[in-house]
Amino acid sequence: MMELLSVIELDDAIERALAEDVGHGDLTTRATVPSGKRGRARIQVKEPEIVLAGAFVFERVFTMTGSAPQVLKLADEGSRLRNRMIVGEFEGEMSGLLTGERVALNFVQLLSGIATLTRKFVDAVAGTRAQIVDTRKTHPGLRALEKYAVRIGGGRNHRFGLDSGILIKDNHIAASGSITRAIDRARKFAPHTFLIEVECETLAQVEEARTAGADAILLDNMTLDDIRRARAQVGPDLLLEVSGGVTLETVRSIAEAGVDLISVGALTHSARAMDLSMRIESL
Amino acid sequence: MMELLSVIELDDAIERALAEDVGHGDLTTRATVPSGKRGRARIQVKEPEIVLAGAFVFERVFTMTGSAPQVLKLADEGSRLRNRMIVGEFEGEMSGLLTGERVALNFVQLLSGIATLTRKFVDAVAGTRAQIVDTRKTHPGLRALEKYAVRIGGGRNHRFGLDSGILIKDNHIAASGSITRAIDRARKFAPHTFLIEVECETLAQVEEARTAGADAILLDNMTLDDIRRARAQVGPDLLLEVSGGVTLETVRSIAEAGVDLISVGALTHSARAMDLSMRIESL
Amino acid sequence: MMELLSVIELDDAIERALAEDVGHGDLTTRATVPSGKRGRARIQVKEPEIVLAGAFVFERVFTMTGSAPQVLKLADEGSRLRNRMIVGEFEGEMSGLLTGERVALNFVQLLSGIATLTRKFVDAVAGTRAQIVDTRKTHPGLRALEKYAVRIGGGRNHRFGLDSGILIKDNHIAASGSITRAIDRARKFAPHTFLIEVECETLAQVEEARTAGADAILLDNMTLDDIRRARAQVGPDLLLEVSGGVTLETVRSIAEAGVDLISVGALTHSARAMDLSMRIESL
Amino acid sequence: MMELLSVIELDDAIERALAEDVGHGDLTTRATVPSGKRGRARIQVKEPEIVLAGAFVFERVFTMTGSAPQVLKLADEGSRLRNRMIVGEFEGEMSGLLTGERVALNFVQLLSGIATLTRKFVDAVAGTRAQIVDTRKTHPGLRALEKYAVRIGGGRNHRFGLDSGILIKDNHIAASGSITRAIDRARKFAPHTFLIEVECETLAQVEEARTAGADAILLDNMTLDDIRRARAQVGPDLLLEVSGGVTLETVRSIAEAGVDLISVGALTHSARAMDLSMRIESL
Amino acid sequence: MMELLSVIELDDAIERALAEDVGHGDLTTRATVPSGKRGRARIQVKEPEIVLAGAFVFERVFTMTGSAPQVLKLADEGSRLRNRMIVGEFEGEMSGLLTGERVALNFVQLLSGIATLTRKFVDAVAGTRAQIVDTRKTHPGLRALEKYAVRIGGGRNHRFGLDSGILIKDNHIAASGSITRAIDRARKFAPHTFLIEVECETLAQVEEARTAGADAILLDNMTLDDIRRARAQVGPDLLLEVSGGVTLETVRSIAEAGVDLISVGALTHSARAMDLSMRIESL
Amino acid sequence: MMELLSVIELDDAIERALAEDVGHGDLTTRATVPSGKRGRARIQVKEPEIVLAGAFVFERVFTMTGSAPQVLKLADEGSRLRNRMIVGEFEGEMSGLLTGERVALNFVQLLSGIATLTRKFVDAVAGTRAQIVDTRKTHPGLRALEKYAVRIGGGRNHRFGLDSGILIKDNHIAASGSITRAIDRARKFAPHTFLIEVECETLAQVEEARTAGADAILLDNMTLDDIRRARAQVGPDLLLEVSGGVTLETVRSIAEAGVDLISVGALTHSARAMDLSMRIESL
Repeated sequence: MMELLSVIELDDAIERALAEDVGHGDLTTRATVPSGKRGRARIQVKEPEIVLAGAFVFERVFTMTGSAPQVLKLADEGSRLRNRMIVGEFEGEMSGLLTGERVALNFVQLLSGIATLTRKFVDAVAGTRAQIVDTRKTHPGLRALEKYAVRIGGGRNHRFGLDSGILIKDNHIAASGSITRAIDRARKFAPHTFLIEVECETLAQVEEARTAGADAILLDNMTLDDIRRARAQVGPDLLLEVSGGVTLETVRSIAEAGVDLISVGALTHSARAMDLSMRIESL
Repeated sequence: MMELLSVIELDDAIERALAEDVGHGDLTTRATVPSGKRGRARIQVKEPEIVLAGAFVFERVFTMTGSAPQVLKLADEGSRLRNRMIVGEFEGEMSGLLTGERVALNFVQLLSGIATLTRKFVDAVAGTRAQIVDTRKTHPGLRALEKYAVRIGGGRNHRFGLDSGILIKDNHIAASGSITRAIDRARKFAPHTFLIEVECETLAQVEEARTAGADAILLDNMTLDDIRRARAQVGPDLLLEVSGGVTLETVRSIAEAGVDLISVGALTHSARAMDLSMRIESL
Repeated sequence: MMELLSVIELDDAIERALAEDVGHGDLTTRATVPSGKRGRARIQVKEPEIVLAGAFVFERVFTMTGSAPQVLKLADEGSRLRNRMIVGEFEGEMSGLLTGERVALNFVQLLSGIATLTRKFVDAVAGTRAQIVDTRKTHPGLRALEKYAVRIGGGRNHRFGLDSGILIKDNHIAASGSITRAIDRARKFAPHTFLIEVECETLAQVEEARTAGADAILLDNMTLDDIRRARAQVGPDLLLEVSGGVTLETVRSIAEAGVDLISVGALTHSARAMDLSMRIESL
Repeated sequence: MMELLSVIELDDAIERALAEDVGHGDLTTRATVPSGKRGRARIQVKEPEIVLAGAFVFERVFTMTGSAPQVLKLADEGSRLRNRMIVGEFEGEMSGLLTGERVALNFVQLLSGIATLTRKFVDAVAGTRAQIVDTRKTHPGLRALEKYAVRIGGGRNHRFGLDSGILIKDNHIAASGSITRAIDRARKFAPHTFLIEVECETLAQVEEARTAGADAILLDNMTLDDIRRARAQVGPDLLLEVSGGVTLETVRSIAEAGVDLISVGALTHSARAMDLSMRIESL
Repeated sequence: MMELLSVIELDDAIERALAEDVGHGDLTTRATVPSGKRGRARIQVKEPEIVLAGAFVFERVFTMTGSAPQVLKLADEGSRLRNRMIVGEFEGEMSGLLTGERVALNFVQLLSGIATLTRKFVDAVAGTRAQIVDTRKTHPGLRALEKYAVRIGGGRNHRFGLDSGILIKDNHIAASGSITRAIDRARKFAPHTFLIEVECETLAQVEEARTAGADAILLDNMTLDDIRRARAQVGPDLLLEVSGGVTLETVRSIAEAGVDLISVGALTHSARAMDLSMRIESL
Repeated sequence: MMELLSVIELDDAIERALAEDVGHGDLTTRATVPSGKRGRARIQVKEPEIVLAGAFVFERVFTMTGSAPQVLKLADEGSRLRNRMIVGEFEGEMSGLLTGERVALNFVQLLSGIATLTRKFVDAVAGTRAQIVDTRKTHPGLRALEKYAVRIGGGRNHRFGLDSGILIKDNHIAASGSITRAIDRARKFAPHTFLIEVECETLAQVEEARTAGADAILLDNMTLDDIRRARAQVGPDLLLEVSGGVTLETVRSIAEAGVDLISVGALTHSARAMDLSMRIESL
């Protein structure tokens, strides 16, 4: 997990979530569960199949709730798990397991939902040149985690934020005067480490962008025919990205139209939480 | 909005989201949009109908991005808006409008999605004694906002966290020895300001909980018949809550079985983001 | 301690206190105590008798000041200790013991003061049905710790904050129009997990609250006679709480008047710090 | 107030206190007080006499709770107010006044308690050369505010923390080998901006400290006779401080023994909260 | 300033600097300057010539120190100012001007030093195709401000951090097996919004990088002759960057060797603070 | 290191620096370096000679970047290292070594630069009574670390901030009316733990300060002759400090003029970063 996500950033998100849920304390557990009592928590899949993401959260959460957990089992990130298969098994102080249960599940169900949906899109375009990429349509405060889940699902990350990509849209064009002038300004003032991508709504714009030296073009809500024409127009080397209302039904035909990247907002803003159950037994 | 949500807490969530999205800076806007240029942003509905929630976020975001916005129009929280109707209109520094656009939309689309879905559930049980309540299955870090959206949609909040309700579940019962002992411990050690609610899976448990003095009973994944029997068994005054896999299709029959509260995790963990468009024009 | 207090929250309070005291550094120790020198700190009671609370703070403080402490002795939380008895004994880097001494003592002397005073009130009502509860009159920023000390002293916690109890006071009544309407609104809009308690100043108000379905009544500054009348009026099952100027002299007669809860602001806002001495010897 | 206390620091303490008290929200007020309703809050003294400190907190708190307060009256910091006299009067949104009431009172009652007690000690030594100074025995997290209250009460601040004074105690002496060596080390390694003060328990130590060039001597728990002897021994120019169990009964005789400074831990760790009432009326 | 730097981020840096400098309070000013006294601060250049950067810091600092400043004069960012010319003039509460003086100067002297040095490098390559860019060799915690100063001085920013550029160095090459494989991996896994730049130490490496499709090549510590050969080898369109020990003496000949970018660590890690004087007069 | 610098404070500075540099992630390393690959980092001097300061930062940084480093070698703080000598050697996860390299070097190069320059000034006055002291002209946010480096270089710290010294300057004098009145006010209102130092520009001011009881005098930008006269005038016991444009060329003659302290802003604001190289090899 180390290479993928900063531990500081992860712990920060979990601490916020625990603070939000525990507040002044887990009153029910405090009143009913004796200190020192130990338990074993087993998390299982309750869906036909999922792609697992974020399961390392359990250990972090249970550590923060004072459970001093021992990890008995933990499925690999990215593994496909079918109904009733085990996500993880942990032994520790019972009270901490109970206090952390909901927060941990909220994370893993969300992230596995994103990884699972991403995997479906990725599988749908298998064999084409197209890659599935995410967007900035993430839940506020959870972007790093959600983009990690996209990677686990086989997707590729688009820019993480406004600071990790140049994407010239209609308002930037209008403010600069033309696509050509917007590209010139970006070429001159932004760090040279970035490609310049331009969002286009017409083939005429595509032509202007290509001529002005754009490195990538984002075709926004174009028909399949126009997408094919755009590819022919720009040649094979310029990166073509498509966005706008892409679904599992339409994604393959878009891929086959010859694009390089298909960005799908739904990966993060509409992924359904995967159902997982946690059973805790006394020891 | 003041009465519903803490401004400090709201600003904190927005600052985090902006930090996450803007990072080292909005490179495209910095390169292409001249300082001082002003614009007008108009946000419109792109769904058949939504229940609006969180629209006050626009002004806060645009203020933080340095746009010094003037609010020209702003629809009321909770209003039902149909396709193409206007959510809000803002005038301000163009660069700040562009930099804040995505973050603001991410908030309002999520919250309106929750309010809209909640409203559907609430309407579905109209005329019964049942109230629709939310759960703790929220996106980590966003609970206060998501529970606010539930209220805007006509729902009622269940406990905000582990510190705002006593809910005795199977593990608490096991740790205490019995339902009766768990209730006794809660009655003795928790603040007296809380009701005592017990989660039951069988009618025998319902009976024990009632006898031991529970104030509310949560029927977990019971059949409609058992729900009706539970109501008969406990009489009209004890609060009955139902949870577990409730859908828009099943909610009314559950309500008509005579329960007081129906908790629906989907309100927050599965609400679809409502589609909104923001158009910005130069001034 | 795990079950009672969040470690994150505790460490946060200690870090703030250390930052406040150490600031740019412990100049005297830095100048006069050689690095590597080790010492042993012994903390003793300098009062006739105390109820100990918060002694786990020593180890946390000395760890943060870099003393790498070893715990040689540590008295149990809640134990009654007489003059000269040992609270704890720690061995570690001398400089860290010296730097942390005052901060650690400030915590433990305050918390033991609260536990000791609480225990006196609790003992004073022994054998009656009354429980001693705290209030929200705590030192800003220290509420969780101070309420923990009340529990250690045998008291019960009232609500932790405005979010963990419904308590309808005169201004809420005035704003709603009547006690009955205020109760109706609370019953409808607040989470169902809360009892509804109403503060009353007259027996007529008590009657209205009872009729309107209040679950608990707070009798504010009533005479003993009126307290007894209130109990007779509401019957044995409705919770009766008394507050206002309760002292060790008056508390038993109030308890014998038949109330369930007696809230005492003095537990937290007026508890005297217990005198403890820390002696550190070189090793 | 500006010169005395940092606004950033003050707001930080208040935000923490509000977060602690309001948590997920002021449930009672949210349920019963209509948005937009306005009120007037009047704070009055309920003690024979107080020295007011911290009254600026009201406006800050009510601003943060969204009351948008208008200050109608506000007594001067440090003014002596008798029973029923008015501390302040504020008009604003009713809900914010109610939500902020307890937090604001917790601050002002504590700070006024400290200022009032300090004033008593200061008055007790009027006409002598002695000044009353505070200690580091403050409530964790509240030191800046509590030391401010001491100044308002006419006292003088001792060091704010371990970084604002050199005070050589027994352990520093032991670690260095002797008083003389400890002073030498401090003279060499600490910033030259500090005096060197040495805590002494015997007249022999006083003599060694004087000879070694101490600038100030703290006489710890000495008899009046020994204090007088110490003064005679060191001459009139070396600063003499006395600490240890000083009370209102003993302070004047200590002052008359010829010391410059008398430090009193009780100013901050044992000041009784001053009783204030807040009445809020609807507008 | 709005477009260049986030206000939140700026204020955060200033608050930290003030906390660090003011600590428990500005003791000298508190003791000697009466509350309410007003003053006028004038900041002047004490160098032959500077390029001004960061002068907006004065107003922010004086606001935070409670001076409520009025801006009488403020030179433009990026303006060249000669000895004795005025940077700014501010009127406000005297105590706040004094308390903020050093912190404000520390910022502006540093940033103007960077802008001034950058301008010299930029002027030195005027008329060539080369642009001067900065590095990540900045003072910890001050990168955003220091990179802003580089822009003000006419320089261009290289990547802001490890997240805003792909730069393949020797260890990445070794870990991947070859330049070609490293480029392939970056092309596949990193967001497509980035160019791929490869650091090369030999012309053979340059050739491999070019063949494998690198978009930019960083020539590390190469001779002028090799730089010229590298240009000839890669043709005119591939971006060539040079780094390593570049000085004002050598920069022009490097530029004339035909490179696009010259990165200079000294811009930020070795810029001399520009001397400015602040005179404050009483009003 | 424990005695010199707070670990909390150090980690906080490093976390901020890493957050600033890593942002959304180290993209190049993530794409090209396999998880689990281990490496060895060796840091060497690339200057004729340095005084090492801050080398403990490497282990902290590599720990935070997830490298789980093992320390193979680490030179002592304050040791003089010549060209090619080894600062430290660390083994750990390769990706974490690469991600942390620049941040760690930025710290150690800066701090060693300060220690090295300080050592030169200290050596230049060897055998005189003068000590070299730093100033508050530090990089915002880095003061504690920079003052630590001064100590490592053999210098002494002047006040850490406005709260750790009384230094009366021209504006304080003007606001009080005279040097005498300013000293009186400071003597009365500031904690007694501080000396009173007065900044003087003329010998007449020196005389007034001495007469009014100043403990130390700061001679600002005086000639050598006037410095000698000042010493003669005040006698041997009053502390004399000199500041203003002190260089390695002038410092010894100033020291020989008989002053106690020479404060040098250049120690922190103009120290050149020491060049260090880090080589990482695969294991």
